[in-house]
Amino acid sequence: MGLSVRHLLGLEGMSEVDISLILDTAAAFREVLERPIKKVPTLQGKTIVNLFFESSTRTRVSFELSERRLSADVVNFSSEGSSVLKGESLKDTARNIEAMKVDMVVIRHASPGAADFLSKVLRSNVINAGDGAHEHPTQALLDLYTVREKYGTIAGLNVCIVGDISHSRVALSNIYGFIRMGARVSVCGPSTLIPRAIDRLGVKVYSRIDDAIRGADVLNVLRIQLERDAGSFLPSLREYRRSFGITKQRLESAGKNVSVLHPGPINRDVEIAADVADGSRSLILDQVLNGVAVRMAVLYLLGTGS
Amino acid sequence: MGLSVRHLLGLEGMSEVDISLILDTAAAFREVLERPIKKVPTLQGKTIVNLFFESSTRTRVSFELSERRLSADVVNFSSEGSSVLKGESLKDTARNIEAMKVDMVVIRHASPGAADFLSKVLRSNVINAGDGAHEHPTQALLDLYTVREKYGTIAGLNVCIVGDISHSRVALSNIYGFIRMGARVSVCGPSTLIPRAIDRLGVKVYSRIDDAIRGADVLNVLRIQLERDAGSFLPSLREYRRSFGITKQRLESAGKNVSVLHPGPINRDVEIAADVADGSRSLILDQVLNGVAVRMAVLYLLGTGS
Amino acid sequence: MGLSVRHLLGLEGMSEVDISLILDTAAAFREVLERPIKKVPTLQGKTIVNLFFESSTRTRVSFELSERRLSADVVNFSSEGSSVLKGESLKDTARNIEAMKVDMVVIRHASPGAADFLSKVLRSNVINAGDGAHEHPTQALLDLYTVREKYGTIAGLNVCIVGDISHSRVALSNIYGFIRMGARVSVCGPSTLIPRAIDRLGVKVYSRIDDAIRGADVLNVLRIQLERDAGSFLPSLREYRRSFGITKQRLESAGKNVSVLHPGPINRDVEIAADVADGSRSLILDQVLNGVAVRMAVLYLLGTGS
Repeated sequence: MGLSVRHLLGLEGMSEVDISLILDTAAAFREVLERPIKKVPTLQGKTIVNLFFESSTRTRVSFELSERRLSADVVNFSSEGSSVLKGESLKDTARNIEAMKVDMVVIRHASPGAADFLSKVLRSNVINAGDGAHEHPTQALLDLYTVREKYGTIAGLNVCIVGDISHSRVALSNIYGFIRMGARVSVCGPSTLIPRAIDRLGVKVYSRIDDAIRGADVLNVLRIQLERDAGSFLPSLREYRRSFGITKQRLESAGKNVSVLHPGPINRDVEIAADVADGSRSLILDQVLNGVAVRMAVLYLLGTGS
Repeated sequence: MGLSVRHLLGLEGMSEVDISLILDTAAAFREVLERPIKKVPTLQGKTIVNLFFESSTRTRVSFELSERRLSADVVNFSSEGSSVLKGESLKDTARNIEAMKVDMVVIRHASPGAADFLSKVLRSNVINAGDGAHEHPTQALLDLYTVREKYGTIAGLNVCIVGDISHSRVALSNIYGFIRMGARVSVCGPSTLIPRAIDRLGVKVYSRIDDAIRGADVLNVLRIQLERDAGSFLPSLREYRRSFGITKQRLESAGKNVSVLHPGPINRDVEIAADVADGSRSLILDQVLNGVAVRMAVLYLLGTGS
Repeated sequence: MGLSVRHLLGLEGMSEVDISLILDTAAAFREVLERPIKKVPTLQGKTIVNLFFESSTRTRVSFELSERRLSADVVNFSSEGSSVLKGESLKDTARNIEAMKVDMVVIRHASPGAADFLSKVLRSNVINAGDGAHEHPTQALLDLYTVREKYGTIAGLNVCIVGDISHSRVALSNIYGFIRMGARVSVCGPSTLIPRAIDRLGVKVYSRIDDAIRGADVLNVLRIQLERDAGSFLPSLREYRRSFGITKQRLESAGKNVSVLHPGPINRDVEIAADVADGSRSLILDQVLNGVAVRMAVLYLLGTGS
């Protein structure tokens, strides 16, 4: 039994059965990662191109490690020094790459819908590694995996996403994924950074962080994009930290054991206090490790599917 | 029986026997590329360095895919962040790389003669992936392969190269290769972009595109280097498109089935109309796929030769 | 019997037994590099990340070739386009990379102590590929190997390091390594570029290059960092060449067979004359080849140790 889809474009509309299959498969790869030899021959002879039109450290390295551990051949392509600079369209770039008989394409792109577009013009399997402010499905899947590993289940948990919801593909994929798996999802952040129509997605809005923490089992703390957000939507970083920063004191005053996720890279002592990030409630490094297992699962399921 | 040469520096002076051996070998690899597992162990344990002093998407990716599918170990080197920036000479860079016991070097460089120079100072096999406006032999070989695959033969065909002939390494390698294999070669473009002495190469010159199309079985449409040519040699892009752009109407009025090649990346609706590039006469995506087969053939023949 | 250390951070304090074990192991890999197939399966399934926060050609390529020839999986990470640009700390970057179950980390960084710092927060083996003006241990090990190969022994030889001693990690690692292996070490360069306390390391200082050459069996000529030193510490390049440049005439007037090393890339006819660099006394290309063998030895010993 494989996935019902040939591509991983987003979690919107993805079935509970498909999500569960990915998480269960990831659990098997999670065990492989504890072995001295972390490599399996599953995708031997398959070619994967990582098409990164936006720079990224951890997502690119995580995908590349996952691909190599499945024994695939990997070709990296970044927009620096590429035809894209010569004005070639995404469609032409993609069709050229596919014409070289590439089996799978992992794409990160600044435009929402870029992965979806590719999936319509290519025969290769397409995996969305982030498309603008739209979706980042493998990030949400690793968040789901990490929470399921911690609590044994996702259904019934209260998950609150904190930060700039409007510009976050992590937030949107998280909302789709956690709701589909039966969690209750809320968001909390400056009102200027929360989309007005978010309640239509079945999401509760907290304006005060202490209320949000009190109602949550899991906090997913988003990165403040210092290079983008600050100054335009936020009064000041100090003000943001004062109003929404996740501190030890805030977590303790909530009087319960809240888990903390963060997609990274973290701004220490801005959206999250350093001692929270490094503390016992933090699942941040678990997320990183689980990310490799989840990506191996996605690559395996799509790459060996029909 | 192998090639009579140890390096692939250009098609000038290459024998028909050598070119035919490459094309025949490429045909075998072309079949490998249709298999589910597109990898052969031929160059296992061999090390290839891709020395790209000019940025390139498709050529670098095509070489890298070819190398990996032959099971070679691949190290990429681009001029960004390299000793070249520290003023080291090409000779020192190359000798250092060779001292590390590298088996083959693929080089792209802005200076005509760079690959030739390397072949004289290195024991490794050298493959020219484009040296200034001089030659780009694997591009011409894939053009030859694509035309031979389409027509069964090259001899006797009329091949017209359209565009900026003066600054094009693709044009020069095409002229050498197609003439050697028995085709009749012509060029067509603005008179400012056609070298005066081109008739000495045995090439006919068309000044009007409609005449060129009428006389041709194959059009090889060059990319207008928007970032370089426009403005200095061309009156305007609109003017260029009006005078030399390959449109459906122009092809149809010629009243015969002309095939269209383009080395890419294409400027849609500048040197070639979008519906021609995507249409039934276009062999552009065949070229891309054949490029991998041809490069595998060249790497195989040089890498396993004496 | 393995190394007594889990990391290679520097040669300061490294025992003669450990250094000898590395050099002896390198000799075995040196033979592997003469074979048609230069690859061994030793580190199959192990993952190595090359963390280069400073750009480098030869060191990165040398490490990468060494890693691939040991059959390790290699992921390259450079600071361009990385989270480092987003202000993430070295610690967070490193811990994230380790969380992905990376076995070994090779790090080059502008800050002295960066490798040491990583070794304290990571479980992976850490190899210092250059940390600011502190140490560059694999460079010194390959210098030791090259000298031992030439003379059969290191003990008792007179080794003089010429150039900008103050800003050179190569100089410092050389001083530690050669003294530990029983050589007598001296330095020679402009007084502004020699640390005042250098005699405490057991190093003799020559102010005149002819005296230095007369007293030496081996000259290790450092690169003048044209982009950094010139102008601030040096009167002029012409003046530097006149006072400290290693020329054929100077070597011949010393009346003995001095060997010349240089870590590269060389500035021809600045710190070293072109005919010396290419001449019979030069061991420069041996250093490059031995560098691969030495790095394979270090990776092998650390990667298969406890």
